[in-house]
Amino acid sequence: MSNLLNLGIPKGSLENATVDLFKKAGWQISISSRSYFPGVDDDELNCKLIRPQEMGKYVERGTIDAGIAGRDWVRENDSDVVEVCEMVYSKVSRRPARWVLVVTKDSPVQKPEDLHGATISTELVGFTKRYFAERNIPVNVEFSWGATEAKVVDGLCDAIVEVTETGSTIKANGLRIVCDLMESVPVLIANKAAWADPWKRQKIESIATLLKASLAAEGMVGLKMNAPNDKVEAITQILPSLNHPTVAHLYKSDWVSIESILHEKEVRRIVPELIRLGAQGIIEYSLNKVL
Amino acid sequence: MSNLLNLGIPKGSLENATVDLFKKAGWQISISSRSYFPGVDDDELNCKLIRPQEMGKYVERGTIDAGIAGRDWVRENDSDVVEVCEMVYSKVSRRPARWVLVVTKDSPVQKPEDLHGATISTELVGFTKRYFAERNIPVNVEFSWGATEAKVVDGLCDAIVEVTETGSTIKANGLRIVCDLMESVPVLIANKAAWADPWKRQKIESIATLLKASLAAEGMVGLKMNAPNDKVEAITQILPSLNHPTVAHLYKSDWVSIESILHEKEVRRIVPELIRLGAQGIIEYSLNKVL
Amino acid sequence: MSNLLNLGIPKGSLENATVDLFKKAGWQISISSRSYFPGVDDDELNCKLIRPQEMGKYVERGTIDAGIAGRDWVRENDSDVVEVCEMVYSKVSRRPARWVLVVTKDSPVQKPEDLHGATISTELVGFTKRYFAERNIPVNVEFSWGATEAKVVDGLCDAIVEVTETGSTIKANGLRIVCDLMESVPVLIANKAAWADPWKRQKIESIATLLKASLAAEGMVGLKMNAPNDKVEAITQILPSLNHPTVAHLYKSDWVSIESILHEKEVRRIVPELIRLGAQGIIEYSLNKVL
Amino acid sequence: MSNLLNLGIPKGSLENATVDLFKKAGWQISISSRSYFPGVDDDELNCKLIRPQEMGKYVERGTIDAGIAGRDWVRENDSDVVEVCEMVYSKVSRRPARWVLVVTKDSPVQKPEDLHGATISTELVGFTKRYFAERNIPVNVEFSWGATEAKVVDGLCDAIVEVTETGSTIKANGLRIVCDLMESVPVLIANKAAWADPWKRQKIESIATLLKASLAAEGMVGLKMNAPNDKVEAITQILPSLNHPTVAHLYKSDWVSIESILHEKEVRRIVPELIRLGAQGIIEYSLNKVL
Amino acid sequence: MSNLLNLGIPKGSLENATVDLFKKAGWQISISSRSYFPGVDDDELNCKLIRPQEMGKYVERGTIDAGIAGRDWVRENDSDVVEVCEMVYSKVSRRPARWVLVVTKDSPVQKPEDLHGATISTELVGFTKRYFAERNIPVNVEFSWGATEAKVVDGLCDAIVEVTETGSTIKANGLRIVCDLMESVPVLIANKAAWADPWKRQKIESIATLLKASLAAEGMVGLKMNAPNDKVEAITQILPSLNHPTVAHLYKSDWVSIESILHEKEVRRIVPELIRLGAQGIIEYSLNKVL
Amino acid sequence: MSNLLNLGIPKGSLENATVDLFKKAGWQISISSRSYFPGVDDDELNCKLIRPQEMGKYVERGTIDAGIAGRDWVRENDSDVVEVCEMVYSKVSRRPARWVLVVTKDSPVQKPEDLHGATISTELVGFTKRYFAERNIPVNVEFSWGATEAKVVDGLCDAIVEVTETGSTIKANGLRIVCDLMESVPVLIANKAAWADPWKRQKIESIATLLKASLAAEGMVGLKMNAPNDKVEAITQILPSLNHPTVAHLYKSDWVSIESILHEKEVRRIVPELIRLGAQGIIEYSLNKVL
Repeated sequence: MSNLLNLGIPKGSLENATVDLFKKAGWQISISSRSYFPGVDDDELNCKLIRPQEMGKYVERGTIDAGIAGRDWVRENDSDVVEVCEMVYSKVSRRPARWVLVVTKDSPVQKPEDLHGATISTELVGFTKRYFAERNIPVNVEFSWGATEAKVVDGLCDAIVEVTETGSTIKANGLRIVCDLMESVPVLIANKAAWADPWKRQKIESIATLLKASLAAEGMVGLKMNAPNDKVEAITQILPSLNHPTVAHLYKSDWVSIESILHEKEVRRIVPELIRLGAQGIIEYSLNKVL
Repeated sequence: MSNLLNLGIPKGSLENATVDLFKKAGWQISISSRSYFPGVDDDELNCKLIRPQEMGKYVERGTIDAGIAGRDWVRENDSDVVEVCEMVYSKVSRRPARWVLVVTKDSPVQKPEDLHGATISTELVGFTKRYFAERNIPVNVEFSWGATEAKVVDGLCDAIVEVTETGSTIKANGLRIVCDLMESVPVLIANKAAWADPWKRQKIESIATLLKASLAAEGMVGLKMNAPNDKVEAITQILPSLNHPTVAHLYKSDWVSIESILHEKEVRRIVPELIRLGAQGIIEYSLNKVL
Repeated sequence: MSNLLNLGIPKGSLENATVDLFKKAGWQISISSRSYFPGVDDDELNCKLIRPQEMGKYVERGTIDAGIAGRDWVRENDSDVVEVCEMVYSKVSRRPARWVLVVTKDSPVQKPEDLHGATISTELVGFTKRYFAERNIPVNVEFSWGATEAKVVDGLCDAIVEVTETGSTIKANGLRIVCDLMESVPVLIANKAAWADPWKRQKIESIATLLKASLAAEGMVGLKMNAPNDKVEAITQILPSLNHPTVAHLYKSDWVSIESILHEKEVRRIVPELIRLGAQGIIEYSLNKVL
Repeated sequence: MSNLLNLGIPKGSLENATVDLFKKAGWQISISSRSYFPGVDDDELNCKLIRPQEMGKYVERGTIDAGIAGRDWVRENDSDVVEVCEMVYSKVSRRPARWVLVVTKDSPVQKPEDLHGATISTELVGFTKRYFAERNIPVNVEFSWGATEAKVVDGLCDAIVEVTETGSTIKANGLRIVCDLMESVPVLIANKAAWADPWKRQKIESIATLLKASLAAEGMVGLKMNAPNDKVEAITQILPSLNHPTVAHLYKSDWVSIESILHEKEVRRIVPELIRLGAQGIIEYSLNKVL
Repeated sequence: MSNLLNLGIPKGSLENATVDLFKKAGWQISISSRSYFPGVDDDELNCKLIRPQEMGKYVERGTIDAGIAGRDWVRENDSDVVEVCEMVYSKVSRRPARWVLVVTKDSPVQKPEDLHGATISTELVGFTKRYFAERNIPVNVEFSWGATEAKVVDGLCDAIVEVTETGSTIKANGLRIVCDLMESVPVLIANKAAWADPWKRQKIESIATLLKASLAAEGMVGLKMNAPNDKVEAITQILPSLNHPTVAHLYKSDWVSIESILHEKEVRRIVPELIRLGAQGIIEYSLNKVL
Repeated sequence: MSNLLNLGIPKGSLENATVDLFKKAGWQISISSRSYFPGVDDDELNCKLIRPQEMGKYVERGTIDAGIAGRDWVRENDSDVVEVCEMVYSKVSRRPARWVLVVTKDSPVQKPEDLHGATISTELVGFTKRYFAERNIPVNVEFSWGATEAKVVDGLCDAIVEVTETGSTIKANGLRIVCDLMESVPVLIANKAAWADPWKRQKIESIATLLKASLAAEGMVGLKMNAPNDKVEAITQILPSLNHPTVAHLYKSDWVSIESILHEKEVRRIVPELIRLGAQGIIEYSLNKVL
């Protein structure tokens, strides 16, 4: 029981992306449809599948030591936990989730204040109540069991607070975004007592380091090329390396090999320049982790 | 706007069965994945897809005039509505849904009283709180966002209140049913003001009549046979007709045709007897509605 | 070769509905994914799968004697064939297909005349050219290989002529219908020489009769009920039978059995009246064919 | 335990068709993917899912009282059981399964005798050995674990004994059928001791009667029409009724209603004649059982 | 609007392979089923999904600046465009698409000349007409709306011009290839005016360079090994490097590390030799791009 | 025919994993659903798809020269072949397959000896018979055509010998493992005559080498980092390299680049130490082969 960390994996939309990320980071989590207990190949870890909506509660209470969930649900529950780090899962989406205030296209509502006395339907009841209370706007906030957009379309409520990324589904349904209320990214959270325990804190930080290294590697690549000795200076100057590039002499030749790590996005800009400067045999390879 | 009934169709597990039932009853409801508005081929009806959990609230409030939902959710919300009739959807299942109190197999809990001070996880928070309050058993009831069984397996709570039909999934997960708390079947509910309006009440009753006629027809069949004149008495005596069987003379013959409506289940018992009594040319056909 | 009718089955969107309809009419057509030759359980028929776009050409030419296709494509090809009958496949849709003239929502075009000199993209090039030529509106009509809507959205053309049923997809894509150009239903067409051949004409007419009987049965049901002798008059007066209802005396009773065929849609209106008039044991059953 | 019949349902290719057939016959068998025990709504029956290959063995041994399997496997195992009746499942296929002797297209083998000394691969080892032994043709018969056709294509054996319906897959793989060795249809078989037990025999016969009634109904329909009194004679003469047709007078009219049961295939031939003879309001309906 | 390149992505069979290739090359193109507008993470690009059949027309006209399509469709439309480069998508297939002249197996046709006066069905009407006109063979070429093979099987035409890779489907359908008419690979084409614009040409060339680098990397790998100093000469001589291999001294050792890029296919031949020559710790890794 | 190796690929559960493994090793095997003949891009290989159950027989007989199958089936058939090497496909599972002796949970059987005179059902008849014969325990072993677990649940036999990995399905079905009888991993086996032929043996060994190199690479990664000169000693001491790490000086800097190959599992332990020791710009990359 000593040296065992209870870790919450978010069930639902983040589930597969989280398992994939842990795999890149070096942990194999196996979730079986026939069992509630995810396996993990680390004797110091014990994983549980937990709804993001309940992650904050169980971490706060210490039922689990740490867990991953959207920041939206951590805030909804006003959970008293340590936020260890943000994790932008670029595989799922490029943009953070946005919780927006939405009305029908032809509604007279133009700003939150216009909802004075109105009924608002949302899955995020706690957050929405606090949002309007802080602005002294009296509203009636109702819990929505899903299909929230249909409620404002159908006239079952006056406005909704709903999550979106690009807003395109909202527009397609003939609705209008009044304003953004909160942006949310996945976060790794820890129980306060666990964070105070040296072994648990070190384990949580080690997990955080490797998860972030795997996320960082998603947009980076290694680039290697050969060049004549007299071009090295020019080439290394345009290489946006994390550190100095590695330069090695080619066997029995006046040429050198130059290697560097850079953002994948920069490759399409830099490669034509490298060729112009005399680089040859340029290759690009993928990275699993970048620390 | 006059002579228009707003009708709630339950979104989710009852959705397809409800649409099929209305089709048998004579209404074509078309639900498109690209639209929130179900169409219906009756100018006097306006359908809305509504979560069963919210049906009671919207019917009580009058946002819709009538709707179909499980009785469990109507009671959970303590909705002040008229229950028009029960509808046992035999196509979905032969048995009503049961909400049961569940613990792990090796838990010491043997009756509700043993849960004094315990934490119970359930989607049916209101009902569960009332159930234990009426019995003066202090418990902490928490809302579960799904995967409720996993919570008691994982030790995140002491017991759960969960829905089941046969209990087999519960047993397969190594859990034990302490006792049943409530049985639930789908019910047609109506808003009290709508029920007081003569046109709306007549419309709701007409829908109820045809839905029940379609449900009744599911287990009934028509049986028709030929028999010699002198066997009619014996044959008609064993036919468990809803009414008297229809007997008609065959063209230019001493034989008659006998027709009767009976439960499909009885056919396998009666047919061998009918053959023994001299019936011939026995045919069975299906029914759409039985009133 | 004598007494053999070559029949074209429309490949594509009408294919399954056509096979289902023939099955109801009494012919089993079996289409295998591993073979181009549909089988049929009638030695006098030889089926071929043919694109609706080409059906008219092959029927006109006599390669096949008869076939089913949308009237749109028969007109597009200006095929010189006999149109034997219309067939409204209610299973696929309640409404005929409409070919409509479509522009972007903010286009200045309000009527066909406004397209003077414009480029129109469509799969129905022949029909569209004739339509505009008859109105003396010079336009440039281009064949579209599919995804026609995208072309006007993308600005690759000024307008499109496209098929729709409800127009909802068109609106969802931010487009606007200027006007309807043609309505289309499936038709059974025959080659002129085949129609002049007595055996072939009789075979085609027999197929037409049974297909129409099956289509007619889709919206009709049989209704049977028991009633006391003195209610027969009142009940039969409200029954909208195709012919006189069948009335038979119940065995050893003052009651009669009344049976009638009516439109399924009328059942929901009539049943409450029948009950009020004293009918009992009302049952409804399905029909395969109505002639 | 008294008055309980153990019944084997064939697992695999006949499974769904068997369950559907029992449903039409009046028994609801429910097979769950999560359980080995099929449920059935008859307290006198206990169902077990058994591979057709093993059905004969378990029925012979009395482990189960009766079961359904292909006759091929009953013969393969030379099982000493009672064959109660054949059941031609027309829903699965129109034709019985054929076990054929197959070689490559260019093999010199033209008749079984040409396989003297050859190696034959098959799933039906017992039957094949007996077949060649009875004809005094020495061969080496090997059990094939599946993909039998590939073995003769690949030259892993000289010939195969394989099951087919139309032979089209065999031809498509470049193989040739030398001759047919056995035809097989599903049969209901019973244990000899169970057959000698009066209650069990009566139960098995009752099942057989209702299964056959359901199979018989698949190709039959009810036809009902109205006709003037003076046409009855002519119309009833062309109706190929199982028995005499039912004729009833229409209410307050000189017309009669004529009803008859006939093969669906005859409808397309007879209907045009009926119309010519003056029949009107012709309707066709489906049957569940015909005894 | 300046410095924006309109780029056509081929809708259909090449679509996914094209998006994957652009991803490897460094551009994320996102195609949504709910929108006609593919997104791309490059402000200088604007993508449109266009049918390969129409790509040539829109590039020629300048509606788009460049696009990817099969060379077959570019030639069918006789489009006046610049062909920038070929792209052999080895992921889709190893072989170029072949348009072949096909007849039934037992047709007397042995060469194109034998089709004098015949009817030929094809999707490639323009190309086929030109092909036969250039050889002075009068034929009737008809547009086929798909399922072209069925037409020659069914006798609806005398021959077809159809696309294939291996010809195996054609043989499986009992057809015979008379001769090949054209080979086709995907090509990147550019509008002539766009090609004359320095910025657009440089952008198109940059895309071409990176797409080709990604394609080239598909069959190449990096190979790295350690070897004693005195084996370097022998080892480097058998390494088929694109350039000189990279050789680096191992830390505090007489060994060196040797690294080289080679075709994946050569690895299985060279590795046993490398081991024989004394190489150790051989590792192989994948490449994203090779320039 | 000279210099051609006939190689058996296991059809079924190992099929995809085997094809994937050959792909990593450098051979592209293409299995088409429309053909029995897998293609392979090596003129010296001829692949055949063969059931694992029959692989031993065909390799022993020389029909094929070598093949991959589970060791269980090689032993079941007591095949006289050369076992070239084991191959642990970590992608399919981490654990070898276990054949276990299984009874119902409440059976009195506690050890194999308790099965004296019992009936045992299994797919592995030969092995099971030998196992019990060697221990002088008389049992009746029957071949099971699948669904073996259901047989012991249903009481059709006393025990089964069945394959499992974790035993969890067995427990979930209410069964109990008495003991393990055999562990099995995939093996590459060769025909004895082929193994004596120098060219064939060298080809088989070359395949074995590359397959093992690909399997070895699955759990290994390359790690590369930069460090100041004075930290090299400390860093290289904790790197568990297969050989010495490669160290290279960074261009115009006091820093060096250090590269090493290690087990992926060690990364999560070592990375925090490396950072503590002053390593920077740490990257991890994947390997295809490790020899």
